[in-house]
Amino acid sequence: SFEFEELTQYVKSHEDEFIETLRKWVAVESDSSDVAKRPDLHRMMDMTAEKLRLIGGTVQMIDVGTQAFPNGSTIALPKVVTAQFGSDPSKHTVCVYGHVDVQPAKKEDGWATEPYELTDIDGNLYGRGASDNKAPVLAWIHTVEVYKALNISLPVNVKFIIEGMEETGSNGLDDMIEAQKDKFFSDVDYIIISDCVWLSKRPALTYGTRGNCYFFAQVEGPKKDLHSGVYGGTVIEPMTDLIGILDKLISPSGEILIPGIREAVAHLSDEEWKMYQDIEFDMESYKKDIGMDKLMYSNKVDLLAHRWRHPTVSIHGIEGAFSSTGTKTVIPAKVIAKFSIRQVPKMDPATVEKQVTEYLRSVFAKRKSPNKLNVSMVIGAKPWLADPTHPLFEAGKAAVKRVFDTEPDLIREGGTIPIARTFQDVIGKSIIMLPIGGFDDGLHSQNEKISRYNYIEGTKLFIAYLNEVSQIKKY
Amino acid sequence: SFEFEELTQYVKSHEDEFIETLRKWVAVESDSSDVAKRPDLHRMMDMTAEKLRLIGGTVQMIDVGTQAFPNGSTIALPKVVTAQFGSDPSKHTVCVYGHVDVQPAKKEDGWATEPYELTDIDGNLYGRGASDNKAPVLAWIHTVEVYKALNISLPVNVKFIIEGMEETGSNGLDDMIEAQKDKFFSDVDYIIISDCVWLSKRPALTYGTRGNCYFFAQVEGPKKDLHSGVYGGTVIEPMTDLIGILDKLISPSGEILIPGIREAVAHLSDEEWKMYQDIEFDMESYKKDIGMDKLMYSNKVDLLAHRWRHPTVSIHGIEGAFSSTGTKTVIPAKVIAKFSIRQVPKMDPATVEKQVTEYLRSVFAKRKSPNKLNVSMVIGAKPWLADPTHPLFEAGKAAVKRVFDTEPDLIREGGTIPIARTFQDVIGKSIIMLPIGGFDDGLHSQNEKISRYNYIEGTKLFIAYLNEVSQIKKY
Ligand SMILES: [Zn+2]
Ligand SMILES: [Zn+2]
Ligand SMILES: [Zn+2]
Ligand SMILES: [Zn+2]
Repeated sequence: SFEFEELTQYVKSHEDEFIETLRKWVAVESDSSDVAKRPDLHRMMDMTAEKLRLIGGTVQMIDVGTQAFPNGSTIALPKVVTAQFGSDPSKHTVCVYGHVDVQPAKKEDGWATEPYELTDIDGNLYGRGASDNKAPVLAWIHTVEVYKALNISLPVNVKFIIEGMEETGSNGLDDMIEAQKDKFFSDVDYIIISDCVWLSKRPALTYGTRGNCYFFAQVEGPKKDLHSGVYGGTVIEPMTDLIGILDKLISPSGEILIPGIREAVAHLSDEEWKMYQDIEFDMESYKKDIGMDKLMYSNKVDLLAHRWRHPTVSIHGIEGAFSSTGTKTVIPAKVIAKFSIRQVPKMDPATVEKQVTEYLRSVFAKRKSPNKLNVSMVIGAKPWLADPTHPLFEAGKAAVKRVFDTEPDLIREGGTIPIARTFQDVIGKSIIMLPIGGFDDGLHSQNEKISRYNYIEGTKLFIAYLNEVSQIKKY
Repeated sequence: SFEFEELTQYVKSHEDEFIETLRKWVAVESDSSDVAKRPDLHRMMDMTAEKLRLIGGTVQMIDVGTQAFPNGSTIALPKVVTAQFGSDPSKHTVCVYGHVDVQPAKKEDGWATEPYELTDIDGNLYGRGASDNKAPVLAWIHTVEVYKALNISLPVNVKFIIEGMEETGSNGLDDMIEAQKDKFFSDVDYIIISDCVWLSKRPALTYGTRGNCYFFAQVEGPKKDLHSGVYGGTVIEPMTDLIGILDKLISPSGEILIPGIREAVAHLSDEEWKMYQDIEFDMESYKKDIGMDKLMYSNKVDLLAHRWRHPTVSIHGIEGAFSSTGTKTVIPAKVIAKFSIRQVPKMDPATVEKQVTEYLRSVFAKRKSPNKLNVSMVIGAKPWLADPTHPLFEAGKAAVKRVFDTEPDLIREGGTIPIARTFQDVIGKSIIMLPIGGFDDGLHSQNEKISRYNYIEGTKLFIAYLNEVSQIKKY
């Protein structure tokens, strides 16, 4: 018998406490991309371990080595936190993966509130990392906490693996998983990842993610920045060269111009087309949410396909050029473009690295510039794709039905959770993504939030899900 | 009789004191482009007025109104400082123009020393604004101070007009000059500007400057930044659009692609060609100074012509995109390119504004993007050209001969001193540019400096110059 009422009643009565814990976690600027914030990131890992210990887990903090920079310097990576609750061999063992590092955020980027102060406005909890991925990680921890507090035995053994480098490519984690394959992971049956969002107001189960190849293209010219009046007209400016090669990456209509990239992508099958056609997705509210009158594609299937199962190029920005408000008459000496290409099944990051590098070099060579181009791929994460008919997904449907009284959407995710692919390749176990974030949570954007509703009902979903998983037949 | 020895002896014995004053001036972060530094800028104007008062000038601080921003807010402009030394109607009256605001500078831009701490390394005085334009302004003030201290009467009446908005387009100054035309400027015979640098190790007199039209091109799409994984492929990204139109401004070989721009430029005459050919200019040391193996043009005349008398496009950077180190997977929602086009005789900023705006709009329209483009010209400064055979330049040659025992180069300046053109058009008086900065001073760049030698010998040059000007025949 499953004491669902008793468990969810406990969640309800501890709602404020759960939000207070989220507030403390959001207050830590665990931005993994900024080495200056590394002490905060270490503190965040300590807090995570401490929280897991407090509710009775067997916790380890695993050293995954150092991070090396192009200039030769190194810095310690945040430790990976693992925890174990129960080891009953008659039960299934699930391993929950999550991360507690966040994307950069500054008030002046356009936040309405302080990004590291959780702020409740009309039931939405605003803060960097609120939805990506601190609230989902806490919802999982609280799930175990609730079972423990009520002295109800966990229906499955639960393990945790929580990292602090997800936002910059999960440095060190692949090696750690490889090393722990026959140790920590030996008894794990299923991996659960809750690091993405629903597609609409309806809950969703996610069976695929895109990968990502992130590039730096650096053009270096004069040995220092130059006055554009004094030197303009006499030097071939690095910015002009960089703009010139960036403009050759993608056409105005979104066609990737790098030879070989599109050719690698699998064609959309009739079944896929049918499946996409059936998904509940409102183009108008999507447009409204992002504030655009027109999207890249005007029909649902094309749009979803290009969000989930086609590659895309995004140019994120340029380092080294003038980027402040106001005017500066400078010829920047060294400029570094940051762009990335989302990866889908049949694409291989090593091949993409070669295609992009060779293409940009050939485009640059045509310019006959004396400046120096250096292209490097700094992140190369593979896509992940699961079978949505697997019992893990059936369990997900049942849990959604119990908590939300509806069918979930079966969706893919445009973003990247690189570790899903590693779990698949190295551990060889089945994986499900069970999101609780809302479609409009604004991950990586200004004013990121999670709603109280999604945070609290999401916790209930996890409670129900553990029970459903316990009923999967052992093969 | 001209007591040159006595005057220059005084300079020699007060060298350290003059450098200390420069140190105090450089310590003030009078960055006119940054409104957060506005209090420092006001303080800089106060210090300038105080210094001029201390040596006996009749000083005024003239209110030139407020600066308005696109968002509707306003802020007080720094006052313009005027001073007068002597009003003997039998003497010529010169007016020295200078500015005490500076370009932005941060240590992390790549400065070897703190930009606002004057640092003497091997006889070079490093600091933001050291050469542009604080040392030259101080050298002029010290020139008057030396005459006064030795009780030697000034050979000409000397006026000063010192502003604090030069680096961002001299806001308010044009109107002030217009208003003072028949007052402060009524008795002025000649305008002297010392806000540029020599071409080589040889002193120079400057008879022309380029103007500058500075543009913001803003592309606005989604209402907030988006996660490139979640949204990439579904939206037409503003960065892609912006890169696409910037790439149409200039060809790899430096050809400006905006219709009408090159057509407006006067052809290089045979006389000009001959004059450029005779100028002492070492391509190899120019290359070495900036650290480039190859320049835009491989012969001296083409290079000098494109530095001085041809327009050029420089792309300075992009506001609103990701510009830090590290990686961020963002689709920036609103990006603003900053670029400028140097202006030469026969070009007109109002026409250029129209040409650029219409061209970018048409290029953008071809992309059929739903994003919004907004092009605005935020600075429109005209070029200036003088007759290098005027007596002011003969006086300059004589002064250079006395102090440096050599002939000066007669040169033009690629940079912009917008006010030269205003003085010419409004006051209608002759103007000379008498630089004392070294060719490698790095104006607007990291590690800006002036050498002790140029600062101190430059002061002597100004002392000698006043005497030479006093001997110009009154017409
Ligand atoms: Zn995440
Ligand atoms: Zn993320
Ligand atoms: Zn200047
Ligand atoms: Zn300047």
